[in-house]
Amino acid sequence: MLPDSLSTQVKVLGPTRFPNPLLQIRSTFVERDRVLLPSTLQELEPYLHREPPSFEMAGPRRELFFDPSTIACGILTCGGLCPGLNDVLRSVVLSLTYAYGVPTIYGFRYGYAGLAAKNGLEPLSLTPAVVEDIHTKGGTLLGSSRGPQELGDMIETLERLKVRVLFAVGGDGTLRGASALAQEILRRGLEIAVVGIPKTIDNDILWVERSFGFATAVEEATRALEAAHAEARGALGGIGLVKLMGRHSGFITAHASLANSDVNFCLVPEVPFRLEAFLGALEARLRARGHAVVAVAEGAAQELLPSSGERDASGNLRLGDVGLFLRGEISRYLQGCGLEFSIKYIDPSYIIRGVAANAADSEYCLALGQHAVHAGMAGRTDLMIGYWNGHFAYVPLALATAQRKQIHPQSELWQRVLGATGQPDMS
Amino acid sequence: MLPDSLSTQVKVLGPTRFPNPLLQIRSTFVERDRVLLPSTLQELEPYLHREPPSFEMAGPRRELFFDPSTIACGILTCGGLCPGLNDVLRSVVLSLTYAYGVPTIYGFRYGYAGLAAKNGLEPLSLTPAVVEDIHTKGGTLLGSSRGPQELGDMIETLERLKVRVLFAVGGDGTLRGASALAQEILRRGLEIAVVGIPKTIDNDILWVERSFGFATAVEEATRALEAAHAEARGALGGIGLVKLMGRHSGFITAHASLANSDVNFCLVPEVPFRLEAFLGALEARLRARGHAVVAVAEGAAQELLPSSGERDASGNLRLGDVGLFLRGEISRYLQGCGLEFSIKYIDPSYIIRGVAANAADSEYCLALGQHAVHAGMAGRTDLMIGYWNGHFAYVPLALATAQRKQIHPQSELWQRVLGATGQPDMS
Amino acid sequence: MLPDSLSTQVKVLGPTRFPNPLLQIRSTFVERDRVLLPSTLQELEPYLHREPPSFEMAGPRRELFFDPSTIACGILTCGGLCPGLNDVLRSVVLSLTYAYGVPTIYGFRYGYAGLAAKNGLEPLSLTPAVVEDIHTKGGTLLGSSRGPQELGDMIETLERLKVRVLFAVGGDGTLRGASALAQEILRRGLEIAVVGIPKTIDNDILWVERSFGFATAVEEATRALEAAHAEARGALGGIGLVKLMGRHSGFITAHASLANSDVNFCLVPEVPFRLEAFLGALEARLRARGHAVVAVAEGAAQELLPSSGERDASGNLRLGDVGLFLRGEISRYLQGCGLEFSIKYIDPSYIIRGVAANAADSEYCLALGQHAVHAGMAGRTDLMIGYWNGHFAYVPLALATAQRKQIHPQSELWQRVLGATGQPDMS
Amino acid sequence: MLPDSLSTQVKVLGPTRFPNPLLQIRSTFVERDRVLLPSTLQELEPYLHREPPSFEMAGPRRELFFDPSTIACGILTCGGLCPGLNDVLRSVVLSLTYAYGVPTIYGFRYGYAGLAAKNGLEPLSLTPAVVEDIHTKGGTLLGSSRGPQELGDMIETLERLKVRVLFAVGGDGTLRGASALAQEILRRGLEIAVVGIPKTIDNDILWVERSFGFATAVEEATRALEAAHAEARGALGGIGLVKLMGRHSGFITAHASLANSDVNFCLVPEVPFRLEAFLGALEARLRARGHAVVAVAEGAAQELLPSSGERDASGNLRLGDVGLFLRGEISRYLQGCGLEFSIKYIDPSYIIRGVAANAADSEYCLALGQHAVHAGMAGRTDLMIGYWNGHFAYVPLALATAQRKQIHPQSELWQRVLGATGQPDMS
Repeated sequence: MLPDSLSTQVKVLGPTRFPNPLLQIRSTFVERDRVLLPSTLQELEPYLHREPPSFEMAGPRRELFFDPSTIACGILTCGGLCPGLNDVLRSVVLSLTYAYGVPTIYGFRYGYAGLAAKNGLEPLSLTPAVVEDIHTKGGTLLGSSRGPQELGDMIETLERLKVRVLFAVGGDGTLRGASALAQEILRRGLEIAVVGIPKTIDNDILWVERSFGFATAVEEATRALEAAHAEARGALGGIGLVKLMGRHSGFITAHASLANSDVNFCLVPEVPFRLEAFLGALEARLRARGHAVVAVAEGAAQELLPSSGERDASGNLRLGDVGLFLRGEISRYLQGCGLEFSIKYIDPSYIIRGVAANAADSEYCLALGQHAVHAGMAGRTDLMIGYWNGHFAYVPLALATAQRKQIHPQSELWQRVLGATGQPDMS
Repeated sequence: MLPDSLSTQVKVLGPTRFPNPLLQIRSTFVERDRVLLPSTLQELEPYLHREPPSFEMAGPRRELFFDPSTIACGILTCGGLCPGLNDVLRSVVLSLTYAYGVPTIYGFRYGYAGLAAKNGLEPLSLTPAVVEDIHTKGGTLLGSSRGPQELGDMIETLERLKVRVLFAVGGDGTLRGASALAQEILRRGLEIAVVGIPKTIDNDILWVERSFGFATAVEEATRALEAAHAEARGALGGIGLVKLMGRHSGFITAHASLANSDVNFCLVPEVPFRLEAFLGALEARLRARGHAVVAVAEGAAQELLPSSGERDASGNLRLGDVGLFLRGEISRYLQGCGLEFSIKYIDPSYIIRGVAANAADSEYCLALGQHAVHAGMAGRTDLMIGYWNGHFAYVPLALATAQRKQIHPQSELWQRVLGATGQPDMS
Repeated sequence: MLPDSLSTQVKVLGPTRFPNPLLQIRSTFVERDRVLLPSTLQELEPYLHREPPSFEMAGPRRELFFDPSTIACGILTCGGLCPGLNDVLRSVVLSLTYAYGVPTIYGFRYGYAGLAAKNGLEPLSLTPAVVEDIHTKGGTLLGSSRGPQELGDMIETLERLKVRVLFAVGGDGTLRGASALAQEILRRGLEIAVVGIPKTIDNDILWVERSFGFATAVEEATRALEAAHAEARGALGGIGLVKLMGRHSGFITAHASLANSDVNFCLVPEVPFRLEAFLGALEARLRARGHAVVAVAEGAAQELLPSSGERDASGNLRLGDVGLFLRGEISRYLQGCGLEFSIKYIDPSYIIRGVAANAADSEYCLALGQHAVHAGMAGRTDLMIGYWNGHFAYVPLALATAQRKQIHPQSELWQRVLGATGQPDMS
Repeated sequence: MLPDSLSTQVKVLGPTRFPNPLLQIRSTFVERDRVLLPSTLQELEPYLHREPPSFEMAGPRRELFFDPSTIACGILTCGGLCPGLNDVLRSVVLSLTYAYGVPTIYGFRYGYAGLAAKNGLEPLSLTPAVVEDIHTKGGTLLGSSRGPQELGDMIETLERLKVRVLFAVGGDGTLRGASALAQEILRRGLEIAVVGIPKTIDNDILWVERSFGFATAVEEATRALEAAHAEARGALGGIGLVKLMGRHSGFITAHASLANSDVNFCLVPEVPFRLEAFLGALEARLRARGHAVVAVAEGAAQELLPSSGERDASGNLRLGDVGLFLRGEISRYLQGCGLEFSIKYIDPSYIIRGVAANAADSEYCLALGQHAVHAGMAGRTDLMIGYWNGHFAYVPLALATAQRKQIHPQSELWQRVLGATGQPDMS
């Protein structure tokens, strides 16, 4: 079910009133075209006699809400690291400076904590010279943190520094926070735009066909799978077991399994399985082929694991460790079978998210940052930059955070995983 | 202008008549959904009262035209190397064998030459064991060649070996050849399907949003640009000049320039420029910043170069060497200016296309091969597997080869290049 | 103290008696030169009036003990994976085949288990075609296992298959096993040479200045350290904690710390430290700089950890997990300090050893395999191929396994680590 | 023939007179040990009754000639780029600052040109913050240039800025220049030390067993060879021809050929060959195996090529282009034979030298910079930091520049190349 047209409308601070300085060097601007939500005939069918839902297309507008030469902007990064964070920071700073001539850019340190001026954290002053080479390194120049802050504290800082556009780079929780902030700003009648830039190494945000850093993360994940395959083939009854990121969505695990065709079992949160079915299939594979590679998303099989009930600073439930759990269960089961075996467990964890972005992600981050700047200058607020049907688009934060993107077991993606691994139905 | 609905119809050998063996292990099949060609409201506008044009969606069908357990299939690779060729070969072989149970697969050597049985070339017998690890290496297991062969010779081989589906992996010329072959087969009333798999490192085939190997090629190209940047910064008046692939379309050069933000001049075939304007802008850059990086597509500025009039085996006109030409012109011009300078010219040439596919391309090739197999089994012919609006689709070869995909100077892509390089209008 | 000259003498099966087939294509052979053990004047001083100790130089001899055209050879790999194993296998097979014309080569599967014909394991028949591309993948074609086997069983297989030279690739335990086997063979008066090829990812075998795979392992380890640095800088009070291989010798940890200059604390087994001193120094670093990177070898600080007393199949004591231990102790301590902090723990484990060899290691493995073949053909036995003072050399196994190579706290290496990390004396 | 002991003595500015500040944190210093030049018994033989030649061992001394807290130092980089230049710069700056407390460090721009203050070039002020991340990029922060400058101009700058130790990073020509400068300084009775740091991507400087950046360059070179191999296998009669760096010494070509075992012909300057012999052998290889890979050093076969007689700014004779020459000759010859063939020519040129150093080179550069600083502080001058028998050592510049290091056709290295390629004697 596609959302209705109303829910795809992005908030605007007010009518535009300043000419875009890009008019001097650029001839094409986005006028009124919009990005279709349907991409197939079946999806389009319900809309034969009315306009199908669509997103406002991202891009520069001829007229702006803000006079860029007179304002300050701010940017912050929240949540876990992701390849490309520095590319996004750099793109926003270069675009604000060179394309729009914004004179002052603040980089708030350690996420919302810095915006709330916690711990006496002062923002960095960001210029092209500061960000020149940062994209060659992983991590984030600004630092990051988890968890919300008081809306009042954050607005106070924005007011004090005369920030007119705030760019918030982060995941689900960060975008909810950005939305709350944008709404409180509107409620107070302030002229400050809040633009979200979706960051999710798990690729689990709706209306973002492709999240930045994801391709790089999958590339890194395949390296762990290759090592697991070498270990599996290197021992009699060798089992390479790899745990990959993915709390609620197994996209990294699924795509890495498809990119590395040596995976025999791919386990994701969206497709529950019975432990005995898995263990039996693993035994059969070992008897037939002598070794096996298992890729498991960290959020898989949580229903089989005892929960600690603990939560992290972002409010996420602490997951049980499915990697250690499976290692134990596999050992116990195979010992019972009397099969000779050797399990090698690999948890690449942060290695996957700490690297610099690859070329495709780097280019994508460049565009993402530019579109965020275009949106803010034109007075769009309470939105994020989505990517849909091959176009960057403006997506209301409420729509983006309403649900989580997940692998559908009937989807072409999952069917391909089943085909590539050859794993049986274990539900 | 989008093509009309008629031209998007794919030819079918006849009614399907055998159940798909995948019915035993898979629950989802493509029934009747189609991929929309329009992706924005403006593109959709002309079709408010009639069905917009669409492609048949790729994927497995419940019923097949061939009985896979009784047939032989063949595959060949033509034209220049491209990262992912071995992934595609492997995917086709694994899919034919494991998903459909096809007992005999021939790999024709050195492209159409092998299919025409030239030079006594015998086909390889392809099995999962033969292709198991080939995707970890660049190149093509089968070898490749350029140029057409006699249709009669090729059909004779297909008949002799009882090949029922032929997969042809190649570019523009190869796909035209595949179309001619498919039509001659139909004219003769033979039941042989010809399925094209589009290969273009230049990413210049229509209805292929993303061509396999392209992401890998851009990744490699950025390495050459990084070296050029190091050289440029390393000398007083340093100029790093890099020639990249792209005979008629500058996609590699443009995307690599966006992925590597150190390029100051990006020159592509689609956007002609005046030599004096370029040289003047280069001088200005050198005076202002002391160094410069220039990325030029091999097909750029051909109107400024004397043509040899020669053609290669595929019938492509031999291009003048724009890299050496620019090196000479820049030297001459800057010597005239009395500026101290140092040009370092880099031509990575085949290094870019000889590497193994990265993770994203590898996964894409896996899907591409599977969809080609699904298409052939269902009796589709004279088509290629395209990729449009995020879906794999069946595209008639006539439509795909009608024109070449190029960078539009008004496109968002080129506008981004102009923004990223800061290069002036040099037309 | 250097060993005496007697202990550097390698055993020989008997006088040479066949001309080396290399005589037809090669003009240089090792005649009588030997590799000096001393490399400085101080080391040479005790030998002013007598010949200093030296190793027999590796290389082809004009005369052989075996007639290569009539014999069979065997090879096996033991212990943990190490980058380059496949390169060594390939080099031995190519050298036996092309340089010496040995007609039959057996690859025993899963180490000594395969040689003892356990589990009905049959050897592979190794030819140039089988090993052609194996060096592009990590792992070992033959598989590996730990632990000794009955000498009688192994000799029986060698006799049954008429193997005249056995190449054993492995670490400390494997080389002891090879020595025991060689001695039993000599005791029985059999003409079978046993040549060891030292494999130690930890670089802890004596008289091996550089062990194969070590450079690759360090390269991989620095990637984990880079990720840890990104994580450390990405959080307020960020601590990146990385556990690296090194049970008894901290060479990987030390060299990776020197190659990646962002490590602030390098902890190795050879340099014990007081926990409070480390925690205090870490606190000081965090207060001064806001973040820290800690690299710890798996065998470090074992005296601080409770031992399980368990042993693995090779008889190695199971180590306590120093990474988890430190993570816990650091958390406890810093919570007590009231400092805001965030620990990210990375254990790259098998990722480091499963990759293919880099260029330097690949070339080294090629030479190592060739020298092992030269040694075996000339009838040398109970030896390994060492590397000393820049030369490959024949080292008696008794000498090589007498002790373990470790980092000396007074060595230039460790002094450089102290300088690079800036860590204080924590003993 | 090893040099006599006299010629291995390094010049010293005067007696040491200040305590080393490292005494406070370090317990080991180099007292009087020296590095042996002989490494085999045969080399040692002539010295049975006298001390064999040796180099002063590199390392910190207890007493210094300069008071580091009061002086300025300078550093410059000359000649072509080489992986690791930034690592060396960084190491020198960190060591001067943190280990010795030198308050002022100048980075002269564009080599000797900057030292001679040509073009109004002002030196950079180098601090740990400036060099913090430079090692993650290729190139040189300071820029580089070729060719000598007036000694008087350079000494004037040193005097004006009160520089007491100058570090010159460069090749043959640079080191000769450094020696001339050091001698003129001594002649004038000035107290300025000149310390050379040998940089040669060709690995052709004597008494440097391993030059920094060389391992990285070989690693990159193997990537070009892999692409050539893919191209060669991808065409009927495919020939991959790769030109690699190496004006007078073919070390890169030889080592890359050994690291990448797909090279069939390795051509280096040190081993002349007859063109007909090569062409005939190539034809034989093509007839037997269908494809071939040829690696040629840029300085190979110069006697077969017409010389332009031109020289570059360093005074090096401009080489004829052996790659294009061979491509032409091979084409002509094979057309004459009537063989179907396809040549793909790859010239990776600057791509190989513009990358960042790998882990092994990075660590090596760290040590090299530290030893250069130790040497300068102790008043050593007119020397470079060599590496011999596994030790860093002080080598008089006169000795280091007396000759060029080359591949000896009888050496183990070249014999291994012949074995690995299987190429016949073509002299």
